Amino acid sequence: MTQSDTNLIKLIREGDRRALAQAITLIESVRDDHREQAENLIEGLLPFTGKSMRIAVSGVPGVGKSTFIEAFGKHIISLGKKVAVLAVDPSSKISGGSILGDKTRMDGLSQQSEAFIRPTPTSGEQGGVARRTRESILVCEAAGYDVVMVETVGVGQSETVVSEMVDMFFLMLLPGSGDELQGIKRGIVELADLIIVNKADGDLVSAAKSVASDYSSAVRLLQSSHAQWVTPVVTCSSIEEKGINDIWDIVIQFRNSLSEDNLFDKRRIQQALSSMRRELDDLIFHDFHSSEAVKSVITVMEGKVESGLKSPAQAARELLSVFKRES
Amino acid sequence: MTQSDTNLIKLIREGDRRALAQAITLIESVRDDHREQAENLIEGLLPFTGKSMRIAVSGVPGVGKSTFIEAFGKHIISLGKKVAVLAVDPSSKISGGSILGDKTRMDGLSQQSEAFIRPTPTSGEQGGVARRTRESILVCEAAGYDVVMVETVGVGQSETVVSEMVDMFFLMLLPGSGDELQGIKRGIVELADLIIVNKADGDLVSAAKSVASDYSSAVRLLQSSHAQWVTPVVTCSSIEEKGINDIWDIVIQFRNSLSEDNLFDKRRIQQALSSMRRELDDLIFHDFHSSEAVKSVITVMEGKVESGLKSPAQAARELLSVFKRES
Repeated sequence: MTQSDTNLIKLIREGDRRALAQAITLIESVRDDHREQAENLIEGLLPFTGKSMRIAVSGVPGVGKSTFIEAFGKHIISLGKKVAVLAVDPSSKISGGSILGDKTRMDGLSQQSEAFIRPTPTSGEQGGVARRTRESILVCEAAGYDVVMVETVGVGQSETVVSEMVDMFFLMLLPGSGDELQGIKRGIVELADLIIVNKADGDLVSAAKSVASDYSSAVRLLQSSHAQWVTPVVTCSSIEEKGINDIWDIVIQFRNSLSEDNLFDKRRIQQALSSMRRELDDLIFHDFHSSEAVKSVITVMEGKVESGLKSPAQAARELLSVFKRES
Repeated sequence: MTQSDTNLIKLIREGDRRALAQAITLIESVRDDHREQAENLIEGLLPFTGKSMRIAVSGVPGVGKSTFIEAFGKHIISLGKKVAVLAVDPSSKISGGSILGDKTRMDGLSQQSEAFIRPTPTSGEQGGVARRTRESILVCEAAGYDVVMVETVGVGQSETVVSEMVDMFFLMLLPGSGDELQGIKRGIVELADLIIVNKADGDLVSAAKSVASDYSSAVRLLQSSHAQWVTPVVTCSSIEEKGINDIWDIVIQFRNSLSEDNLFDKRRIQQALSSMRRELDDLIFHDFHSSEAVKSVITVMEGKVESGLKSPAQAARELLSVFKRES
């Protein structure tokens, strides 16, 4: 480890937010030397990680994630805790949009010394960005944040990847007819440990309650993340800051329910192992697709599979032998 | 291709059920020479595949899948069609259990010349068996079966894999309190293109209707497989053969809804491509884990990740470099 690495670690541990931002930039970089530096950094910080509550906040654009995170973050800070917010999707609204754009609202959170807000990640391949978020969470933990929130906008495959790196998954919904799909991707409802119907204010209070009631019935028919937990469905108003306290109480209940049988720690260990496997798969995949021999035949092979001239299994075997012959 | 391969292809195409059974045994074999033979066989049969409706029938043990498949299969045969049934899970009830064990019930289907029933697959690694099922479907199609049903018992990862090789996914449920989870694995409800509450007979009729009504509300809040489709929830009695005709009508409607915009064919092409990628991943994975160098360090590396001494990303990178150094 170089002197500058050691220095960065020291600054992060002291709570220097610029150092933290710099570390996350390193983590998100696709440059090989940055990657190596990032891994050294994380290795140095690992002993100080693991102490936060990791929460995903997911929901389609317009559901009010930024306003919610703002209100929820302020509540958590009022309890004497520090909050970090990370955005997964390059299209995240945290940047440019509400939180950073709207001065009146962002005053509450991003200018407080107890909050760290990391807006838009470096754009990159789907999932790739999400995977790096796991490391950004670790760095935030080492910097002393008690709650790390990860915001996803419900596009692409981010949600599944993110659900495997957090302790609790929030799904946010809009008030509206209970019968209508809210553009939530297939499978996301079943990832939720808590469903929040936002904008339960003004004329929308009863509509919000109706959506909550519909989802409340629905989730009882779905499998939840662990046997002791039935996913609660609550309403809240982020702008009126109503229902926010209750949500934090649910977080505590959820954490307590996981602590039985040491499930909280067991899940994290499982998550670390699957993260290793996922990284490995990706590295091997990248290695494979960087092969000139593979590149020269893969499109032809896919074409043959598409047109039914070759079976998928046979095409796969032939591709592997092309790769092995070259390496 | 050898003379015996050509002969087997000919027999399969002529509808010889023993030849078909023999082909599936080859497909399920883990022996390298069998695999090569199986792939040659499939390549020879590929031009004759693609004409069946591929249906998954999933549900927990005891839900009555065998009796349903029996009744449904007989109905399809009465329409002048041929039906093949494949079991994915080694623990499948088709073998030993109801269909083959219970003479009175199996008389209806398995002894008819228009039906082919393939009971328990060769046991093997989870997912591995399921993947081979794709090839068994192709062989059944080449043998002239109009409907191929794939039975899964809802254990392990079979359902997701199977959902990617069929055109339509049935989820079977039991009558009972609408509030109780029926042991269905997380994420399965969202895979369903049709939900069937079985055993809607005798005292259970109203209980079955109540479950159907609950799930009917729930599925409207979940994303279905394509925009033009809202997953129907129906009741049926397999032993009284009630509601069976309606289910076939729904299959036709589903197929028609997919045929718009050519979605039916597009989905199959996508499925073939993802199958190729999945096969490739598995082959590469197998290649990696067969490496002596990898074997000698992987447990140590996993231990370091588990105990938080090494980050998942770094462990993965080190494992890959161990592998590359050896090969």
